[in-house]
Amino acid sequence: MTETTERIVNLGLLGCGTVGGSLVELVQGRADDIAARTGVRLRVARIAVRSLDVDRGLDVDPSVFTVDAASLVVDPGVDVVVEVMGGIDPARDLIAAALRAGKPVVSANKELLASAGAELFELADTSGVDLLFEAAVAGGIPFIRPLRESLVGEDVIRVMGIINGTTNYILTKMTEEGWSYADALAEAQALGYAEADPTADVEGFDAGAKAAIIATIAFGVGVTAADVHHEGISTVTADDIEAAGRLGYQIKLLAVAERFDDASVAVRVHPTMVPVTHPLASVRDSFNAVFVEGAAVGDLMFYGRGAGGFPTASAVLGDVVDAAVNVVKGTHASLGSFGQAVLRPQDDLDSAFYLIVEVVDRPGVLANVAGVFGANGVSIRSMEQSALADDGAARLMFITHTARESDVQHTLEALRALDVVRSVDSVIRVIGPS
Amino acid sequence: MTETTERIVNLGLLGCGTVGGSLVELVQGRADDIAARTGVRLRVARIAVRSLDVDRGLDVDPSVFTVDAASLVVDPGVDVVVEVMGGIDPARDLIAAALRAGKPVVSANKELLASAGAELFELADTSGVDLLFEAAVAGGIPFIRPLRESLVGEDVIRVMGIINGTTNYILTKMTEEGWSYADALAEAQALGYAEADPTADVEGFDAGAKAAIIATIAFGVGVTAADVHHEGISTVTADDIEAAGRLGYQIKLLAVAERFDDASVAVRVHPTMVPVTHPLASVRDSFNAVFVEGAAVGDLMFYGRGAGGFPTASAVLGDVVDAAVNVVKGTHASLGSFGQAVLRPQDDLDSAFYLIVEVVDRPGVLANVAGVFGANGVSIRSMEQSALADDGAARLMFITHTARESDVQHTLEALRALDVVRSVDSVIRVIGPS
Repeated sequence: MTETTERIVNLGLLGCGTVGGSLVELVQGRADDIAARTGVRLRVARIAVRSLDVDRGLDVDPSVFTVDAASLVVDPGVDVVVEVMGGIDPARDLIAAALRAGKPVVSANKELLASAGAELFELADTSGVDLLFEAAVAGGIPFIRPLRESLVGEDVIRVMGIINGTTNYILTKMTEEGWSYADALAEAQALGYAEADPTADVEGFDAGAKAAIIATIAFGVGVTAADVHHEGISTVTADDIEAAGRLGYQIKLLAVAERFDDASVAVRVHPTMVPVTHPLASVRDSFNAVFVEGAAVGDLMFYGRGAGGFPTASAVLGDVVDAAVNVVKGTHASLGSFGQAVLRPQDDLDSAFYLIVEVVDRPGVLANVAGVFGANGVSIRSMEQSALADDGAARLMFITHTARESDVQHTLEALRALDVVRSVDSVIRVIGPS
Repeated sequence: MTETTERIVNLGLLGCGTVGGSLVELVQGRADDIAARTGVRLRVARIAVRSLDVDRGLDVDPSVFTVDAASLVVDPGVDVVVEVMGGIDPARDLIAAALRAGKPVVSANKELLASAGAELFELADTSGVDLLFEAAVAGGIPFIRPLRESLVGEDVIRVMGIINGTTNYILTKMTEEGWSYADALAEAQALGYAEADPTADVEGFDAGAKAAIIATIAFGVGVTAADVHHEGISTVTADDIEAAGRLGYQIKLLAVAERFDDASVAVRVHPTMVPVTHPLASVRDSFNAVFVEGAAVGDLMFYGRGAGGFPTASAVLGDVVDAAVNVVKGTHASLGSFGQAVLRPQDDLDSAFYLIVEVVDRPGVLANVAGVFGANGVSIRSMEQSALADDGAARLMFITHTARESDVQHTLEALRALDVVRSVDSVIRVIGPS
């Protein structure tokens, strides 16, 4: 393809941190190849930053930088706006302004899309421009595009994802190296995978935000981070990991988005025992994967890097090329409209459970404990009893058959109320082989 | 979205076998949902078949069927042509006629695209219409679209795929159940996974055709099935499987497409020892997966059903919706142009190798054998010696460091020429952890 047939498309970046800087380098390195493949030559025209006094180590003319983000998003010299600043404010207003100005937007902002996604998607639609966000979920993994486009005709029943790399790293180290949760977290922090305050990762908030976006796209209904039930991994013990391994499972922090026959949906994040033969069990270290169950296509899995400058910038770049080609063609992709989600309450969901009950070790206790399960309609699939070192206590490990969440919660309450029960811990959901 | 905003898009199917029939059912079942999401209502308008006298068990007006495929592809009442007949003739001419008539085409035909893909892609481009073919590679797995679109800006270095379900089923049974190759093949045939003549699957022809399509799209150069080096699994023994397991590997039939720094490419299919920690090692039974290594994005994997009526029809349907939406918008996706591939000869590729050498068990033999490796520039990573039951023979198992293929082939020749060597067998390539 010769120079004369190329169309230049000017990018305006909001933010220039790790992802933004990587994107600038990628655009510079790949512009020739992209132009040869698509006829579109990408150019970084403007970059909005908070301070002009930072040396970002990029080979960019200093005049490209500006502190005036509000002007950038309406600048006639910007064809595509790329939001890699993160956070809700001012990203939300800037993206809305860009869309209203008729500029396509590529965003990597999970927090914003999990809170105001459906509203921004509809604004993009009414403005007749693209709003693309591959990088907001599962980093570099091409998942949102296959879900939106390849699977547009598919009846997606369930999506299960390992979509937080920090917690997967911690659980992998606990499983493979026998580390405690505290040691694995400390190592994740030393490697820069986990923040000093790791709450957003280890308690499932980060995965919950991504799961809300996945559910919105998979099911076509607006789901926000606030709709997601989440439980974290900070209570998972080395004993649980060991028991899981012995029973043929690996413990993973799964985000699960489901749609039921009545069109209600449920989105939740919790530690889960996954059979070792399930494809999700083999997702190690800080990798991410999203497992999709469709009525026609069966099981699918998408695997890759969920974070990091270049993997995330790669996903942004794919969207940028798409938006740029659409600008040249004068077209855009539609996300359709999003109804209000009918959320199925957590209490009404079904799952099998693993749990540990510590009891006073005396005759009749097991029958007593088992009776509580039965009285609440929870059927026991397997039980293991082991003696504890101290004063005549025993440890009972149960795995239940699939049961209603509310029945299981009533069982846990009733068990805790028994005078022979010292504690009920490590309540972990269990899934079957794929 | 109300009825009045819907646009009807009429489909003309070429063929109505397993995939075609599944597609008709899927379109019927999903049309409302697709219309709600996209504004496009799909309708199966014409189906070309060889005989009108077959009851296909479909809820379709008999007048939809025709034996005149040549008229279907230029019928003004057909908006999108869907080729699910397979084979090269007459599919090739029919697709070309449809494209020339300005009709977008969706094809699931790996054989045709592996032989005439680049030429048809260019015809689609000059005709200004879509030619989409997600289902031709890895069945229901959304891979071609992510590769074409999400990764359009990515520098793809290598693609490794388990893209033949039959051989993966056979190797899984040999690994997990300890079956012989012959027993596993017989079971695959009984289940309908393998043909009575299994050559196309077990000798790597089927995977080779798909690998040619993958290489064409990943590297933007025309690669055909004839360019693909292939070795099958029929010589893999239970001993090899056992040794692989002991050494921390699984044997998989991999299709590998690589691009080198000088822009040459190599595409090959061969049994491969894959480390158990590699994501491809966990792909079991008849599942498929494609593993992509990109310069920016790192490692990706796409996993799912590589065959079967509904999974394949699901992939076809995704393409059909895309083509239909583009018809309504008056746009299409471009595949760009494809240069001639510069193929790197198999002799110039690098790999580590596993091999078995049976020798006469007498002093000095090991030094003799090891000397042959050294003389040919092949470095040994590990060696195991075991006695054989019969008359003083021994079995030497070698794994080499990465070596040039031609050096390894010279080593094999020289070993076979040694009078102390009885046989050299089970030459299997070995890859490292991802």
